[in-house]
Amino acid sequence: MYSWPSRSGIMAGNSFGEIFKITTFGESHGGAVGVVLDGMTPGIPISKEEIQVQLDRRKPGQSFITTPRAEPDKIHLMSGIFEGKSTGTPILMILYNKDFEPGAYENIKEMFRPGHADYSYFKKYGVRDWRGSGRASGRETSARVAAGAVARKLLEARGVKVIAYTKRAGGIECQTFDPEAIEKNPLRACDPVAAEKMLEVISKVKDEEDSMGGIIECRITGVAPGLGEPVFDKLDAEIAHAILSVGSTKGIEFGAGFAAADMRGSEHNDQMDSQNFLSNNAGGIIGGISTGNEIVFRVVVKPTSSISRVQMTRDMGGVTKEIRTIGRHDACICPRIVPVIEAMACLVLEDHYKRQAAMLA
Amino acid sequence: MYSWPSRSGIMAGNSFGEIFKITTFGESHGGAVGVVLDGMTPGIPISKEEIQVQLDRRKPGQSFITTPRAEPDKIHLMSGIFEGKSTGTPILMILYNKDFEPGAYENIKEMFRPGHADYSYFKKYGVRDWRGSGRASGRETSARVAAGAVARKLLEARGVKVIAYTKRAGGIECQTFDPEAIEKNPLRACDPVAAEKMLEVISKVKDEEDSMGGIIECRITGVAPGLGEPVFDKLDAEIAHAILSVGSTKGIEFGAGFAAADMRGSEHNDQMDSQNFLSNNAGGIIGGISTGNEIVFRVVVKPTSSISRVQMTRDMGGVTKEIRTIGRHDACICPRIVPVIEAMACLVLEDHYKRQAAMLA
Amino acid sequence: MYSWPSRSGIMAGNSFGEIFKITTFGESHGGAVGVVLDGMTPGIPISKEEIQVQLDRRKPGQSFITTPRAEPDKIHLMSGIFEGKSTGTPILMILYNKDFEPGAYENIKEMFRPGHADYSYFKKYGVRDWRGSGRASGRETSARVAAGAVARKLLEARGVKVIAYTKRAGGIECQTFDPEAIEKNPLRACDPVAAEKMLEVISKVKDEEDSMGGIIECRITGVAPGLGEPVFDKLDAEIAHAILSVGSTKGIEFGAGFAAADMRGSEHNDQMDSQNFLSNNAGGIIGGISTGNEIVFRVVVKPTSSISRVQMTRDMGGVTKEIRTIGRHDACICPRIVPVIEAMACLVLEDHYKRQAAMLA
Amino acid sequence: MYSWPSRSGIMAGNSFGEIFKITTFGESHGGAVGVVLDGMTPGIPISKEEIQVQLDRRKPGQSFITTPRAEPDKIHLMSGIFEGKSTGTPILMILYNKDFEPGAYENIKEMFRPGHADYSYFKKYGVRDWRGSGRASGRETSARVAAGAVARKLLEARGVKVIAYTKRAGGIECQTFDPEAIEKNPLRACDPVAAEKMLEVISKVKDEEDSMGGIIECRITGVAPGLGEPVFDKLDAEIAHAILSVGSTKGIEFGAGFAAADMRGSEHNDQMDSQNFLSNNAGGIIGGISTGNEIVFRVVVKPTSSISRVQMTRDMGGVTKEIRTIGRHDACICPRIVPVIEAMACLVLEDHYKRQAAMLA
Repeated sequence: MYSWPSRSGIMAGNSFGEIFKITTFGESHGGAVGVVLDGMTPGIPISKEEIQVQLDRRKPGQSFITTPRAEPDKIHLMSGIFEGKSTGTPILMILYNKDFEPGAYENIKEMFRPGHADYSYFKKYGVRDWRGSGRASGRETSARVAAGAVARKLLEARGVKVIAYTKRAGGIECQTFDPEAIEKNPLRACDPVAAEKMLEVISKVKDEEDSMGGIIECRITGVAPGLGEPVFDKLDAEIAHAILSVGSTKGIEFGAGFAAADMRGSEHNDQMDSQNFLSNNAGGIIGGISTGNEIVFRVVVKPTSSISRVQMTRDMGGVTKEIRTIGRHDACICPRIVPVIEAMACLVLEDHYKRQAAMLA
Repeated sequence: MYSWPSRSGIMAGNSFGEIFKITTFGESHGGAVGVVLDGMTPGIPISKEEIQVQLDRRKPGQSFITTPRAEPDKIHLMSGIFEGKSTGTPILMILYNKDFEPGAYENIKEMFRPGHADYSYFKKYGVRDWRGSGRASGRETSARVAAGAVARKLLEARGVKVIAYTKRAGGIECQTFDPEAIEKNPLRACDPVAAEKMLEVISKVKDEEDSMGGIIECRITGVAPGLGEPVFDKLDAEIAHAILSVGSTKGIEFGAGFAAADMRGSEHNDQMDSQNFLSNNAGGIIGGISTGNEIVFRVVVKPTSSISRVQMTRDMGGVTKEIRTIGRHDACICPRIVPVIEAMACLVLEDHYKRQAAMLA
Repeated sequence: MYSWPSRSGIMAGNSFGEIFKITTFGESHGGAVGVVLDGMTPGIPISKEEIQVQLDRRKPGQSFITTPRAEPDKIHLMSGIFEGKSTGTPILMILYNKDFEPGAYENIKEMFRPGHADYSYFKKYGVRDWRGSGRASGRETSARVAAGAVARKLLEARGVKVIAYTKRAGGIECQTFDPEAIEKNPLRACDPVAAEKMLEVISKVKDEEDSMGGIIECRITGVAPGLGEPVFDKLDAEIAHAILSVGSTKGIEFGAGFAAADMRGSEHNDQMDSQNFLSNNAGGIIGGISTGNEIVFRVVVKPTSSISRVQMTRDMGGVTKEIRTIGRHDACICPRIVPVIEAMACLVLEDHYKRQAAMLA
Repeated sequence: MYSWPSRSGIMAGNSFGEIFKITTFGESHGGAVGVVLDGMTPGIPISKEEIQVQLDRRKPGQSFITTPRAEPDKIHLMSGIFEGKSTGTPILMILYNKDFEPGAYENIKEMFRPGHADYSYFKKYGVRDWRGSGRASGRETSARVAAGAVARKLLEARGVKVIAYTKRAGGIECQTFDPEAIEKNPLRACDPVAAEKMLEVISKVKDEEDSMGGIIECRITGVAPGLGEPVFDKLDAEIAHAILSVGSTKGIEFGAGFAAADMRGSEHNDQMDSQNFLSNNAGGIIGGISTGNEIVFRVVVKPTSSISRVQMTRDMGGVTKEIRTIGRHDACICPRIVPVIEAMACLVLEDHYKRQAAMLA
């Protein structure tokens, strides 16, 4: 019998969505990063300015607790748009890489940085683009933000609004919810007073060559009851998939979330009267389908892995080594992940709206 | 706000997996529930007994805190097996429904039960099989357990072991980890002392016509570094998708999980020496790829929605009503969800092994 | 580095469709054959009688030129239907196998029948269900016909009509197109006079322990311009995929088909005036999208591989052998493939209507 | 008849392949055309030169019977390659559009060209990029050729060889098969004598402002028995899908093809002895799986739709008009489609090898 050759390869994992579908490409220090968006509604006006607005929320250098890498992150729209409107064919959005600083990574070329995907990527592929995390770089998420901006536009026309914000960081929890405050503080926290304290703590941690994690909350309003595809493509299951595909996230919970473990059914069940739900412990999704209640979920973000402190690790030859990851780091990545979380939520929702629409005809 | 068209439909959401792929079918009180398993390795001995063993762990009536519905849940293997071995063609596994008790549901025919998917399903499809939750019934998960038993067998041949157990229930947390204890107490808890207390609390709650939630933990050993598909099909993202597609789950966390929010990078990063990782805060997955460390995740299970207490709800005509969900309920569903969590983890892993294998040739 | 174990397996290939999606299962002599239909519009009345009507057109024993295998091919609907209507959840349709005659295949257990998939299946899977071709049996197509009957019903509500018929068989070509004649002659030919001659030729061939091929034509009316998904899922490309997935087919052509090779552009181009196309050389599809013109394609069907004549072959040990495939054969399979071609066309069209509908929302 | 909703959209149809997967983008006169190739084996040396070689076979201006559009078709590799080798992450290959001549299309802005996809695209999307056929342009196939070059490289390492050539054009059929001759005549015909005659006929047709079709044959050697995925993803069904997704193709046949209609089973069945198949009427595929015999198929190519002769058509307002498609046309597109056919065959094969490899582990 025939025997297959034994070289290594990998199956595609760079696409997301069933109908409103994205495929991203690109490494931190390759020629470009970007996305092909397929399944776009034709006839929709699209300008690069409205995409750039979202990218600017994710780009580096927004405050002193984030990395100063000087990428302009300018978007280029290369196909799928004619006379300012979508044609229904794939939209290529591309960001050329400019701020190459590969020399900065020479010292880690032969070592696996703790907390980074260096080791697992190497074990998987047998090769490793060591320049700035290669494909595992957070820079890949700019492609998601670009595509998400298009999804957001379609959702807004349906009355759907998606906002995320830092709920907790540096051990400080927001005590109020002020949506106006979010874009006005460097943490993108929903409580301006808490934001001040977070900044204080994280600045201190940064001075100590360390980093901190946090929790991001996302709220989605305007989704009518009935969105989501049982049984495997439940709306919450797909959101969880989308969110945990973002680097640095380590968990997600909906509505009452982990607190439900200690609750009773009589307490957790969201009762209704003729007008409203009387609570929202389910977080707006039951049986994988939207209930019409606000969709609420929280995501935990781990502390940034890149720190300048000395850590123990292994080199390519398997020998124990000490490593210091010198370079440009984010002391807390939450504010830059906020727009990525929103983008992923938008992509899931728009895809499910289109899947739902397939019920017609 | 967007309103759904009057005649509604749905896109396929009943399949899971890319290569090792399942499609489930069936309602709680239809003719049967079951699964088609496609992508099976040929030449593997499969007996219905080894599948039945897993189904028996999920079936009703195992203890007095679980529903006494008298389904024998006998598996039938109808295709894809020849002379006791898999042929590589689809395996149909079917469980015929026996214990019809539709009369028990007459009283809820016109009302939406709080915490159940009655309302969201009706809003989505415009029709509703009100007999025992229809497609949204937990009974659908028996199909997953059957397919998972086959995945488990393939994984065991690779040295991969998947175990789940109740970590917390009734407000009681396990203090020890004794794998031998798990199948010996009705909670499937990993600490026999804690299990006693859980049982006490939940029995009392049951007497009060109420229910309670809990937390299930899953540990996977034997996965070599390198499994998982960046960037969207990260191993943790796919596990999250799989797990949150199980009814009653409301959140998932990996490794240190939500505790990472308050940790520092120097604390959370799993350092290595030449032999081992020195900690496992990442839960065995970094950058979406297994590190070789034990894979650990926790799932929160909400309290069972079916309770006999009076609750407020709405009827099909939109009028406020009182409802009591009389019938056969699980006071705590954790012990019956444990095998479902294991099954879903097995399905994700086997699929990723096969995707990884596509790198050959 | 980790090295993967080396046992053999296979990736899923038993599903068809993106939104209106089928997964078939079952072997000729296993427990059952059938299909799970996912993505069904909810609220549609479905009776087993209307599905049975189509199955009866494919079943064996309809005339003396087809196999007398006595399968009643009775359909069972096991899920996805409540109170006579679809619920939008997966529909399991199953046909239990009755007329086991495995003894009839004992003589071919050790030999590869020429023209059959015995050899290629064995080489692929390493195991082989030798009872009546196993999974490669034409019996699998009854599952497609059952699902196609549901698609047909949805299409009829849109005014779409799909008919296929034998255009050529036994070297005789139909000279007229009489749709009324099709179901009235054993060949399902569109010309009753030609049908007589075909029957004569094929009966004679049958007496000589041989078989013959033919050509089936399919015409689809009522499809508005605009159906089909460029660039890879062109309507003609998907129809070709669907049709060539039916055993015994060896080619397909649209409109003028192979005759286009010798035509000029001025001759082949379908000109239009304000009302109509002036010809239909394209067969109703240009650029992969329907034009509104009648969709026309032809499929070549090879002569049935099972013949009683002595042929040379190889046995499992690689030794040259003589073989006579004694048993119940179709002297010309065209009339039984006609409903399968129709079913596959219906499945492609309904799926594309639903994909097209995803443009809404 | 069903009429499409006024604001139309589309589901994703711009990807091909399950594991070795491509997504193409770009219009004839937009910013760029290109492809994202996902699922690439890591560690494989890739140079842009080896891709350019294939693109140069498809590019315009190779002879006086093909269009002189002056696109250099220079490939840029933007991601997925590090230090000259593939990393296993997506490869973006892009060709920037240079030779804009949109003025040339002003005269057809308001009219639907016969034989072109102008009308069907407009009916589908409601908008139309009228510059040089937009997304329906043959220029999109350069992206396929680029990706196919990578697939070809992987296949060559397995000993698989794919060649296509013009078998018939201008009514002239090749009488000999001389593989050396193919790249040496402007028709890419396999018979140099026939090529001379074809050129003569087509030159004359060109002078008459007309075009001609032809037949391309493809032969694949070196595929071991066992490749292909029953039942819907049969190797021939997937090849048919791939090939008919190429514009201008109107039919495909395998092995004896349409001639099988008039053959007997005893004649068509490919008998075997202990060493070989004694014939190849099946074209190397039975039951959707390769037999080890040479894979042979033929594709009919319609005459180029763009001709300068006066034709009747309809304008955007539905009024009958006369049209002359002045510009740069291919009098016979066969020689430029030959590398596209090869590329599509390579993409299908490599994908199926990787799907087959998923059986390991």
